[in-house]
Amino acid sequence: MRGNSIGQLFKLHTFGESHGAAIGGIIDGVPAGLQLDMEAIQVDLDRRKPGQSKITTQRKESDQVQFLSGIFEGKTTGTPIGFMIPNEDQKSKDYSHVKDVYRPSHADYTYDQKFGDRDYRGGGRSSARETACRVVAGAIAKQVLKKEGVVIRAYVSQVEDIQLTIPAEQLDFSKTESNIVRCPDLDTATKMIERIEAVRKEGDTVGGVVSAFITGVPSGLGEPVFDKLHADLGKSMLSINAVKGFEYGSGFNAASMRGSAHNDIFEKENNQVTTRTNFSGGIQGGISNGSPIHFRVAFKPVATIMKNQSTIDKDGNQAEVQGKGRHDPCVVPRAVVIVEAMAALVLVDHLLRNKTSKI
Amino acid sequence: MRGNSIGQLFKLHTFGESHGAAIGGIIDGVPAGLQLDMEAIQVDLDRRKPGQSKITTQRKESDQVQFLSGIFEGKTTGTPIGFMIPNEDQKSKDYSHVKDVYRPSHADYTYDQKFGDRDYRGGGRSSARETACRVVAGAIAKQVLKKEGVVIRAYVSQVEDIQLTIPAEQLDFSKTESNIVRCPDLDTATKMIERIEAVRKEGDTVGGVVSAFITGVPSGLGEPVFDKLHADLGKSMLSINAVKGFEYGSGFNAASMRGSAHNDIFEKENNQVTTRTNFSGGIQGGISNGSPIHFRVAFKPVATIMKNQSTIDKDGNQAEVQGKGRHDPCVVPRAVVIVEAMAALVLVDHLLRNKTSKI
Amino acid sequence: MRGNSIGQLFKLHTFGESHGAAIGGIIDGVPAGLQLDMEAIQVDLDRRKPGQSKITTQRKESDQVQFLSGIFEGKTTGTPIGFMIPNEDQKSKDYSHVKDVYRPSHADYTYDQKFGDRDYRGGGRSSARETACRVVAGAIAKQVLKKEGVVIRAYVSQVEDIQLTIPAEQLDFSKTESNIVRCPDLDTATKMIERIEAVRKEGDTVGGVVSAFITGVPSGLGEPVFDKLHADLGKSMLSINAVKGFEYGSGFNAASMRGSAHNDIFEKENNQVTTRTNFSGGIQGGISNGSPIHFRVAFKPVATIMKNQSTIDKDGNQAEVQGKGRHDPCVVPRAVVIVEAMAALVLVDHLLRNKTSKI
Amino acid sequence: MRGNSIGQLFKLHTFGESHGAAIGGIIDGVPAGLQLDMEAIQVDLDRRKPGQSKITTQRKESDQVQFLSGIFEGKTTGTPIGFMIPNEDQKSKDYSHVKDVYRPSHADYTYDQKFGDRDYRGGGRSSARETACRVVAGAIAKQVLKKEGVVIRAYVSQVEDIQLTIPAEQLDFSKTESNIVRCPDLDTATKMIERIEAVRKEGDTVGGVVSAFITGVPSGLGEPVFDKLHADLGKSMLSINAVKGFEYGSGFNAASMRGSAHNDIFEKENNQVTTRTNFSGGIQGGISNGSPIHFRVAFKPVATIMKNQSTIDKDGNQAEVQGKGRHDPCVVPRAVVIVEAMAALVLVDHLLRNKTSKI
Repeated sequence: MRGNSIGQLFKLHTFGESHGAAIGGIIDGVPAGLQLDMEAIQVDLDRRKPGQSKITTQRKESDQVQFLSGIFEGKTTGTPIGFMIPNEDQKSKDYSHVKDVYRPSHADYTYDQKFGDRDYRGGGRSSARETACRVVAGAIAKQVLKKEGVVIRAYVSQVEDIQLTIPAEQLDFSKTESNIVRCPDLDTATKMIERIEAVRKEGDTVGGVVSAFITGVPSGLGEPVFDKLHADLGKSMLSINAVKGFEYGSGFNAASMRGSAHNDIFEKENNQVTTRTNFSGGIQGGISNGSPIHFRVAFKPVATIMKNQSTIDKDGNQAEVQGKGRHDPCVVPRAVVIVEAMAALVLVDHLLRNKTSKI
Repeated sequence: MRGNSIGQLFKLHTFGESHGAAIGGIIDGVPAGLQLDMEAIQVDLDRRKPGQSKITTQRKESDQVQFLSGIFEGKTTGTPIGFMIPNEDQKSKDYSHVKDVYRPSHADYTYDQKFGDRDYRGGGRSSARETACRVVAGAIAKQVLKKEGVVIRAYVSQVEDIQLTIPAEQLDFSKTESNIVRCPDLDTATKMIERIEAVRKEGDTVGGVVSAFITGVPSGLGEPVFDKLHADLGKSMLSINAVKGFEYGSGFNAASMRGSAHNDIFEKENNQVTTRTNFSGGIQGGISNGSPIHFRVAFKPVATIMKNQSTIDKDGNQAEVQGKGRHDPCVVPRAVVIVEAMAALVLVDHLLRNKTSKI
Repeated sequence: MRGNSIGQLFKLHTFGESHGAAIGGIIDGVPAGLQLDMEAIQVDLDRRKPGQSKITTQRKESDQVQFLSGIFEGKTTGTPIGFMIPNEDQKSKDYSHVKDVYRPSHADYTYDQKFGDRDYRGGGRSSARETACRVVAGAIAKQVLKKEGVVIRAYVSQVEDIQLTIPAEQLDFSKTESNIVRCPDLDTATKMIERIEAVRKEGDTVGGVVSAFITGVPSGLGEPVFDKLHADLGKSMLSINAVKGFEYGSGFNAASMRGSAHNDIFEKENNQVTTRTNFSGGIQGGISNGSPIHFRVAFKPVATIMKNQSTIDKDGNQAEVQGKGRHDPCVVPRAVVIVEAMAALVLVDHLLRNKTSKI
Repeated sequence: MRGNSIGQLFKLHTFGESHGAAIGGIIDGVPAGLQLDMEAIQVDLDRRKPGQSKITTQRKESDQVQFLSGIFEGKTTGTPIGFMIPNEDQKSKDYSHVKDVYRPSHADYTYDQKFGDRDYRGGGRSSARETACRVVAGAIAKQVLKKEGVVIRAYVSQVEDIQLTIPAEQLDFSKTESNIVRCPDLDTATKMIERIEAVRKEGDTVGGVVSAFITGVPSGLGEPVFDKLHADLGKSMLSINAVKGFEYGSGFNAASMRGSAHNDIFEKENNQVTTRTNFSGGIQGGISNGSPIHFRVAFKPVATIMKNQSTIDKDGNQAEVQGKGRHDPCVVPRAVVIVEAMAALVLVDHLLRNKTSKI
């Protein structure tokens, strides 16, 4: 009810503020008997963690996850997996400059309006630090999906006006992790990295787009009406900090298309049902059809910039926020693994839900 | 779990197939003591119903809602409101031509994959006829919101390449219902209507965009992390048939912007906190800030076209679907009230949820 | 949230007041492909309906259920099953005598406290008429369970001080429906019937106990910690009108037992794990162990009696309620099928939930 | 879905096995702005912890709770409260004797049936150690209730055949914590303590009853139909380890009563609506009426006894379990605070739910 949980059968509940003792969560509904690859979980956490490259924040958090329950002799037991990630950076800083001042386009003002007060240190609960918990759960969800042959690939497809125009089907995804911006086309990646560095030097930030391409999804996932697969994917993506839009398949382009061009013609090929085009993005009537699922997620530029900005304080007086600290000039390179995590959580939830669709 | 419910405190559960006995639902969580305006509910149903103008399907359904419970002497009692809309058109038609054939970009194939079989008459559960139930519940939600001063205005802002470029703040919304395409700018409306008529004559269909502009929303609505207000709005919009994308505030444009341009500077004006710009779309950190909420919803062209298309049948043999019947050439004029309904459901749910945020 | 739904995967949502247009509900989560036995559903409704014998109320309702969706060519489709039961008796009566007066041990006062007002006709939403909807859903749940070999038998085991002392294992359940009080031992049944008739003649009412004995339950149903199988059974029984207590297995007797006598010793017999005794009632650690599940449900005497009683009215003035109308002298004979229905709903819900417990 | 959560608006999610790294949970939905009394929380934990007296297990766990989030400067912030209690006793023991053997009337067999395997150390997830998390959340719930004037008093009312027969209204609850068995009547308490000691010496265990008496509950709490207040109380009590039955108000005695004797006559006294008797137990139609809520909870004798018992092992071979270790001879003295905690969780959940019942 307070919005700290996601999923119906495969559930993640999270807790934690940016500068409290720890962040963490409970993953409930993981089927028993899954042999966990602990290293793979930490690899994903490292893909998200701050300080990993010159185009991310230089803040340091080792982000080592500690599992507290639900795993016995390396396997899941069917009981809830409790975990925590201690906050190492929690004590030192001085936050008096944001205590009473509302930073533009942050959640300071709205938290105060909603709750009457807030833990203002480092953004408190509204900090994207919380997404580390999503990555932990997502990494476990990926291991469930792997057994079903589902592979999720997210990547940066736009930074400011630099767009990756190669269709997903033609990309070499083995390159995504080869560069710090996580764009599978190396020429585009180079331009993106240069742009982010230039923006950082100006003390400014910049937006971007993360795309996802998911293969091996069995047909039948997703529920009619309100819990359409793309509706749950969309909600999960929109719940990531800084996301402003979501589109799947033909997306907003569909608005300017005709039905005769947009319809995906069914064909049978090698005993497999496929479609000639995939404007549907692998989902029809809210249910997966076995074709690749693809979607795009728009991220705004990070609100914290290294420039002074006008604002108001708690009492409504005009004030100024002074940019300082170590912040991301562009959030998309670190968001790639978060997009993957959310997609994994949604897909495994629907995979379990689908186990009860037929007698 | 099967996706036929939406909302946590203000809930809508729906049932019904296009050509069964009736569609209907239960609205649960309506606070007791609300004097209902029954006429306003029917007005909204009429805005959605088929056959209302030359640019919608010519099918006829009177769509008269029957309330079965939860209302006593004109007021809500706090008990669930059961309702039904009989299907008048249910018996006559012959559906043998779609019984075994998968219509392109429809849900025929995926329903069969998920459930093993389906009610194929008129699309069954996957028909947009189901959205009439959403309109009923949305019309009641609007009456709850009206008491709080919230006004929801949706309108058609794009049909194919014809775009309404006037910002929402400058539109005269009293014009929206004055024309059959529901675009508040009459010049643009005329062009849109002409385009839809031309497309219809070609036996084709076309996509479009519905925009929404919501004023009077109190600050504090929305929940941190997974149930951000825009995430719930996005999911609700993506759950509408034919929707391919959702963006709010700056939306996908945010991806190519800089933080210094995108940040909304706080100001105090006439003792009210406002922001100089509203790229946030009235929502910061997932919580409403009191500014107008605005978002855009992309609709694909209707999949049923009056042209023959290649496809496969249940056994995987190549087949052909022949367009016939009375279908919408463009869905957006009728979708305006559905977008309003979904927004109303989400907002009133969060309004109730917010009643417990503080001690 | 308003308490009109039960179940997590196999859900029942109900609506309806005693004297509104209809009662009804939505059964959501019924797996697709189940061939429905419509007659069996009506048989269960008839076991609950008023006017069925001289020891029940003489009110007449035919209680014919109308299914509105979710069934196609006799089979479930996986989409929600909407249904309604019209209220035939709805218009004629005069309820002015209870409009402003709080009947003792009814819900009149508490509904007014909670909702500010109420539909006072025939008890409105608090009337046990609502349980007819449970019976419809329960009858479908039974058909799912039947495929798994689960058989639910409920019966009257006590009326006032007349107790059935024969253990469930030794009862001949084919006799339960052979007599109007639904006690499988005919000698006891005769005494119970006589007692109820005597009580009715005095214008009074009397309490009783319904017992249940369920065989064929697979091991593994129920969830650790909060959703233990007996906890969900208990809640479902306590939600039935007039229920005051629930015990399973050894029940309250366990409080005066020693561990050495109470422990159920495991044995292997004919390649089946069983226990020497069954004080556990077929449930250990909240999870079914394959032994018969047995429990008891206590019902209070019906609050409506044919005698004048002192009370207060809405304004707090002393008043009198005059017994009139046609009411049940004892609720347990009609409650047998409701107990079965609730047990079926809980069991099938856990059956579906259990499908995702292991990888 | 896996049953590790309770509550709808005030939610507790728990995790943890008896001998894992830690147990803990997330309390979600605590309203912001509540000044927490940390000492009161630890006091309740100490009332539950092992080793507190000669009639409880002599095992030692300090049960110090660590809060990880959701609290800032001593006050709740409206964000989830994460907490953990490290398991101190976790490493040392040898559990090889129970690894492959099913202890009678424990959850060993059913966990294996459900999940395929289990963490067998100290009962794993099925251990009552998990209830410490409930006590933490319950202690916070009590602080919310205290602001509303609600006082929850639980106490031991039966140990084997020794019953406390004094009505709750006449008890001096200041005595409950004055003795180690937690019976407010000192004569009865002495007998109970002697009995438990005698049973312990025999290597056996014994059952009992915990009663609760709750005053100051506002009228209007509880929801019609499925979430009746007593149904939620019943479920929460039945979810406690070793509980076999629940009754409220007149309970099972109601089955042998007449309506004319059982009905609670309304009266107005000092401008307050009361009832002459309280067989309703403070709840009518599932909704609180302002009178004291009272109920009884039956506990079976602890399954672990210090005697050898016959059983089977994983392969179905006959085996023997040898009692050893330090276990409770009778669980009710330590269960008193757990009963209080569960009652508090249910009541505060319904208190929040009720905030949205009227317009």
